[in-house]
Amino acid sequence: MTQEAISITKATTKKEKPASDQLVFGRTFTDHMFILDYEEEKGWFDPRIVPYQPISLDPATMVLHYGQTVFEGMKAYLTDQGDVNLFRPEKNMERLNRSNERMCIPSIDEEFALEAIKQLVKVDKDWIPSAPGTSLYIRPFIISTQPYLGVAPSKRYKFMVILSPVGAYYKEGINPIKIAVENEFVRAVKGGTGEAKTAGNYASSLKAQKTVAEKGYAQVLWLDGLEKKYVEEVGSMNVFFKIDGEIVTPELNGSILEGVTRNSVLQLLKYWNIPVSQRKISIEEVYQAYKAGKLEEAFGSGTAAVISPIGQLAWKDETVTINNGKTGEIAKRLYDTLTGIQYGVKEDPFNWISKLD
Amino acid sequence: MTQEAISITKATTKKEKPASDQLVFGRTFTDHMFILDYEEEKGWFDPRIVPYQPISLDPATMVLHYGQTVFEGMKAYLTDQGDVNLFRPEKNMERLNRSNERMCIPSIDEEFALEAIKQLVKVDKDWIPSAPGTSLYIRPFIISTQPYLGVAPSKRYKFMVILSPVGAYYKEGINPIKIAVENEFVRAVKGGTGEAKTAGNYASSLKAQKTVAEKGYAQVLWLDGLEKKYVEEVGSMNVFFKIDGEIVTPELNGSILEGVTRNSVLQLLKYWNIPVSQRKISIEEVYQAYKAGKLEEAFGSGTAAVISPIGQLAWKDETVTINNGKTGEIAKRLYDTLTGIQYGVKEDPFNWISKLD
Ligand SMILES: Cc1ncc(COP(=O)(O)O)c(C=O)c1O
Ligand SMILES: Cc1ncc(COP(=O)(O)O)c(C=O)c1O
Repeated sequence: MTQEAISITKATTKKEKPASDQLVFGRTFTDHMFILDYEEEKGWFDPRIVPYQPISLDPATMVLHYGQTVFEGMKAYLTDQGDVNLFRPEKNMERLNRSNERMCIPSIDEEFALEAIKQLVKVDKDWIPSAPGTSLYIRPFIISTQPYLGVAPSKRYKFMVILSPVGAYYKEGINPIKIAVENEFVRAVKGGTGEAKTAGNYASSLKAQKTVAEKGYAQVLWLDGLEKKYVEEVGSMNVFFKIDGEIVTPELNGSILEGVTRNSVLQLLKYWNIPVSQRKISIEEVYQAYKAGKLEEAFGSGTAAVISPIGQLAWKDETVTINNGKTGEIAKRLYDTLTGIQYGVKEDPFNWISKLD
Repeated sequence: MTQEAISITKATTKKEKPASDQLVFGRTFTDHMFILDYEEEKGWFDPRIVPYQPISLDPATMVLHYGQTVFEGMKAYLTDQGDVNLFRPEKNMERLNRSNERMCIPSIDEEFALEAIKQLVKVDKDWIPSAPGTSLYIRPFIISTQPYLGVAPSKRYKFMVILSPVGAYYKEGINPIKIAVENEFVRAVKGGTGEAKTAGNYASSLKAQKTVAEKGYAQVLWLDGLEKKYVEEVGSMNVFFKIDGEIVTPELNGSILEGVTRNSVLQLLKYWNIPVSQRKISIEEVYQAYKAGKLEEAFGSGTAAVISPIGQLAWKDETVTINNGKTGEIAKRLYDTLTGIQYGVKEDPFNWISKLD
């Protein structure tokens, strides 16, 4: 199947593109999408780029009932030279297959999927916005499509890719957020699906997110599901703390999603000879570091924001202010370096960029 | 909105109905379905019964990415007198709203939803099979339908009901199953979504189910996600043990789904003056009871099987055989009583049956 050529059907009418400053994340989609089907007897077949359009699903389609689905999130960046850059897209394809494995979805050919994504982005290249900080968000996803109400892996799937132009995450420069530690709800637990990028993890996060948003916090700081003691992630980002000169991030433990940005941050820090460790870190330790005046920075990492500095953290009745609520030096350096590499204005020492040819 | 009359559009062609002995759970659907829409500004609106048909969804529809969805499962039974019985349907509507609450989905009017279900079943009444043990499975579900890639509660939903004729669960009489204790994977954890009937719980169960099925076991016995010590559920059923004359079932703890059948079993046992308790029960305790010759019965409870006796249980290297692999007396009595009430051949002391008029 992976040898099959990708057929392309162009849209006959094009949608109007929103102005760069009107772009809202995930609301506008481009003129085309990619689809690849799977049937148990055939494997993956019929790769095609077609006009962006609704899909028709039987009401008994398994994904609507049992949530057997995985997705990815990545971006294409337009450089000043007119090049289109993808940032470590092979990492997203690897993770997609790890998610597939956990969710009992047949694996995809990573190289072929990446080739399909590149072809799709090329077809919709004029949708990539050019204003500073903007990009084209790429959403590959797989849904189980068999119409069947039994709890079992589906025998049919669709792999699809859709594209959405997105505005600058920071409209007025990189800006620290306020977050709140979640003590009641749990996002994921060891033995569950936390390290897979699958629908249920996000559905289960909504209630906590809604509760803290009502209190004025931007994100939830998730603790581990077992002891509600160790820090795991912040919202849909991985999390880092700078304590007494060392950067600490929770080690991968089965319930944390391994972010591509997280991995890149770790590589950059080592490259810069900044001490860094991946280990368990309790919220108590973070709090005690703060009390001792040693909590120097905190930030999240993820494709959407790249780096999101944390200026304030609420835990029970305590309010922890970090670096006077200002963006820390390391967060800033990471943000500048990562975005610099992504937009092709900084050296790329690790060959992270895949250019569209 | 709940005052709105339900519009009915009849199918112009009818599908062929499968023979009673050819019915496979959840594969065939009737001629009609019910739909009710929700938009933030309008609330729930436009209740309608229409021909069973595919729905058209934008590829960015939230349910496909973030799994914000809930469902229910119940049955309609045809009696020898030609009556159509529903079994405690108001309990399913209550649970649907509890699931909605956890998943940040707007609540539905329970009475109205039940009325819609009854009207739909009436329209497709000739689909209810009449052979012994057969029934019409009813699947109400709600999906988030806003096309938006942000992780947030959707602003649009569809509540739908579809119907599927199902064959007898036990083709050759009630029959004990072999199950295996799951020591690695976790279905749900306190603070998560285990007590809601939502897609992610089922997606996360697939891998364990697949693993034990390959070893010849019918179901997974789930342990708690925190200590992997206490019994929670068996497959998609609640679980009961008879130890030294007393029936024990795990107490509701936030990660167990509260089954309508479980609740009915508890009421019947009390009515019969059989000692019963809801409490934590460890797998070690079950094993020790077995060693001491005091593990007298074990069974699962759920809408699909009603009562599913457990004849054998594998735990690590141990094989626990229960009641010589035969159906226990209490399991049998519960099964006969519950199905007797459902099919209108036994007295209904608790008024559990809602007849369609
Ligand atoms: C739960 C979760 N954690 C972390 C991340 C960060 O991953 P990445 O850096 O690959 O975007 C994401 C978002 O992609 C996420 O959804
Ligand atoms: C996870 C789970 N537990 C228990 C049950 C049993 O619930 P009920 O008796 O309401 O069918 C079900 C099935 O409905 C279920 O999905």
